[in-house]
Amino acid sequence: MKFAKRMEALKASEIREILKLIENPEIISFAGGLPAPELFPVKEMVDVSKRVLEEDGEKALQYSSTEGYLPLREKIAKRMEEVGVKTTADNILITSGSQQGLDFSGKVFLNEGDVVLCESPSYLGAINALKSYSPQFVEIDTDHEGMNMEELEKVLKERDNIKMIYVIPDFQNPSGRTWSIERRKRLIELANEFDLPVIEDNPYGELRFEGERPPSVKSFDTQGRVIYLGTFSKIFCPGLRVGWTLGDGEALQKYIFVKQGADLHTNTLTQREINKFMEVYSIDEHIEKIKDVYRKRRDVMMEAIKEYFPKVVKYTYPEGGLFTWCELPEGMDAKEVFKKSIEEKVAFVPGGSFYPNGGKDNTFRLNYSMMSEDKIQEGIQRLGKVLELEIQKKA
Amino acid sequence: MKFAKRMEALKASEIREILKLIENPEIISFAGGLPAPELFPVKEMVDVSKRVLEEDGEKALQYSSTEGYLPLREKIAKRMEEVGVKTTADNILITSGSQQGLDFSGKVFLNEGDVVLCESPSYLGAINALKSYSPQFVEIDTDHEGMNMEELEKVLKERDNIKMIYVIPDFQNPSGRTWSIERRKRLIELANEFDLPVIEDNPYGELRFEGERPPSVKSFDTQGRVIYLGTFSKIFCPGLRVGWTLGDGEALQKYIFVKQGADLHTNTLTQREINKFMEVYSIDEHIEKIKDVYRKRRDVMMEAIKEYFPKVVKYTYPEGGLFTWCELPEGMDAKEVFKKSIEEKVAFVPGGSFYPNGGKDNTFRLNYSMMSEDKIQEGIQRLGKVLELEIQKKA
Repeated sequence: MKFAKRMEALKASEIREILKLIENPEIISFAGGLPAPELFPVKEMVDVSKRVLEEDGEKALQYSSTEGYLPLREKIAKRMEEVGVKTTADNILITSGSQQGLDFSGKVFLNEGDVVLCESPSYLGAINALKSYSPQFVEIDTDHEGMNMEELEKVLKERDNIKMIYVIPDFQNPSGRTWSIERRKRLIELANEFDLPVIEDNPYGELRFEGERPPSVKSFDTQGRVIYLGTFSKIFCPGLRVGWTLGDGEALQKYIFVKQGADLHTNTLTQREINKFMEVYSIDEHIEKIKDVYRKRRDVMMEAIKEYFPKVVKYTYPEGGLFTWCELPEGMDAKEVFKKSIEEKVAFVPGGSFYPNGGKDNTFRLNYSMMSEDKIQEGIQRLGKVLELEIQKKA
Repeated sequence: MKFAKRMEALKASEIREILKLIENPEIISFAGGLPAPELFPVKEMVDVSKRVLEEDGEKALQYSSTEGYLPLREKIAKRMEEVGVKTTADNILITSGSQQGLDFSGKVFLNEGDVVLCESPSYLGAINALKSYSPQFVEIDTDHEGMNMEELEKVLKERDNIKMIYVIPDFQNPSGRTWSIERRKRLIELANEFDLPVIEDNPYGELRFEGERPPSVKSFDTQGRVIYLGTFSKIFCPGLRVGWTLGDGEALQKYIFVKQGADLHTNTLTQREINKFMEVYSIDEHIEKIKDVYRKRRDVMMEAIKEYFPKVVKYTYPEGGLFTWCELPEGMDAKEVFKKSIEEKVAFVPGGSFYPNGGKDNTFRLNYSMMSEDKIQEGIQRLGKVLELEIQKKA
């Protein structure tokens, strides 16, 4: 049997394979991007599930509209004010996690061979989703203020067939970095000038530990060219697979058509449960609880890195989200370090796969949301020793 | 902004648009394909939801494996024995309804311009899902025993670029017909000869009102070329969006890669709830209840059609499933009849959209699962009058 050509590019996600390796509970894992399960509102879910089923069970278990459950879409629309976007439920499509919004973005915008511009490094799950549509990726250099706008402009002028700019401006995965407001504004100017859609992926923005939330790229969009992807995965529960796509006019309509063919609609019961949770409880209070725990874990990890990592290792300081990003001296391979580190029962994700065109193998990603403070302390200490030895070997 | 070329073929599903029109509860609707909501196990869902969350809430709300929840996959694998398939959980991928399996089939097998062979008529949702991959459809004539195998063989010999055969052998949507065992065997012989994958879509097979379930096409497959799509939508609750893809080796592996990019995995909590339901309650008893109700509704509809429809209207006799299929005299347009029928507050789906290349507008589909026996009686009587008038006008 012959498979479609696009299938040649698809492989199992390296991270998923690593996650399988490290199911051993003895391993201190900084590898995944998993929320802390002890913070999941289990009791509240029992309550809202009962309420939804007893109040309106027949509707909650029946087919429902492709766009999603209206009261939930209204609540999401209102929450978008926090990132400077005034909108209504009409502009919101409920998706099965924001991952589905990434897949749909490829389907809506990309022909084979089209060019996607993205940050370097970028989110592995997005790269994998878009690969189904056989694009070329052009990576744009990124620093502590976000994507380099001079380089972006240069590429926009020089390359043909660019069809999309994909960005994660808040606590980026994998780098943990956040874009400055100036870069956000400049991105919109350039997108307008070159008539391109921007996919703004923002799964972590609500998890800010300090300072003010910056306005979203979408908030500067006056031409309906930004598609904003949000999710309940990091602020509620990822297993429920509920996210949203915010878009305008014809573009959102295309996403709705695609959703219809892809899976008809997202789980009706779950949409109503999340909506009920937001009515009966305070999701903002819940988010505060998550932030308190993650902030402390971030602090412990940063302190421990400072204390135990060799000074030549560079790392980012995330103001929120789940990740920090480390860079070893050039010529080193984080995959080799990973092998040694696993022997010491500590895991992380080597950074190479976050570069769609391959490249900086001397990088790696650390997650701090999943492990207790004790384990973070212990794990970073162990990892520090491994790094020390590996760096000495190279020197 | 430019959209991908594939988007030109995608439009809102005509059925979904009709369903919006007829939200008026006064209308007797034979239009949808919705299960009867009064049969949903609402109380049992409250119970299993509570159990799953209290027993293992943190895991039930967390990210989980792309393949799906192992105990549920094991139970599905076992149930496949009913259609003559001996398999294990390793061959099962959980999807968001069987609709997602249709979308993935396009992604895994179809390049632009490739040919899909399907029954004429065929399921609208499949046509829409596959259209995202810009194929050509070649429809194969179908009678009361299923697809015409002589015509299939002829097309297989004459056409290039055929990449997939898509069939719904049990209580087909829209025709309500079931394939004979001989045709199933012949289909496999031809698929083997021409080295093609067969997508066997079977959402209704468990709802057989009389006689024995025939072996699935998959049961005759010795080369791993049939991908079988199943779902809990018609035997449990469609709003939960849980279905499965059964496949072998490399083919199933491709579906798993595609699922990873499309939405990571299906709702963890819901998978565990359905699994728990199957542990605590009997899904077979539940299916018996559904069949008892639908059988009576089918009987009432068939009797009423016999009594009230003009004799020139042809229709199929479904031994199970949700639909019967009607054919008006040639030259009539069921869309015109629909307009008159709506004035009399009765709805159905005009048949034209079930032909991917357009065509028989003198057909329509009737659903009997959603309305009470009284309403079926009343609705068919009203529709009979409309048909009488419209046929007289044409004569």
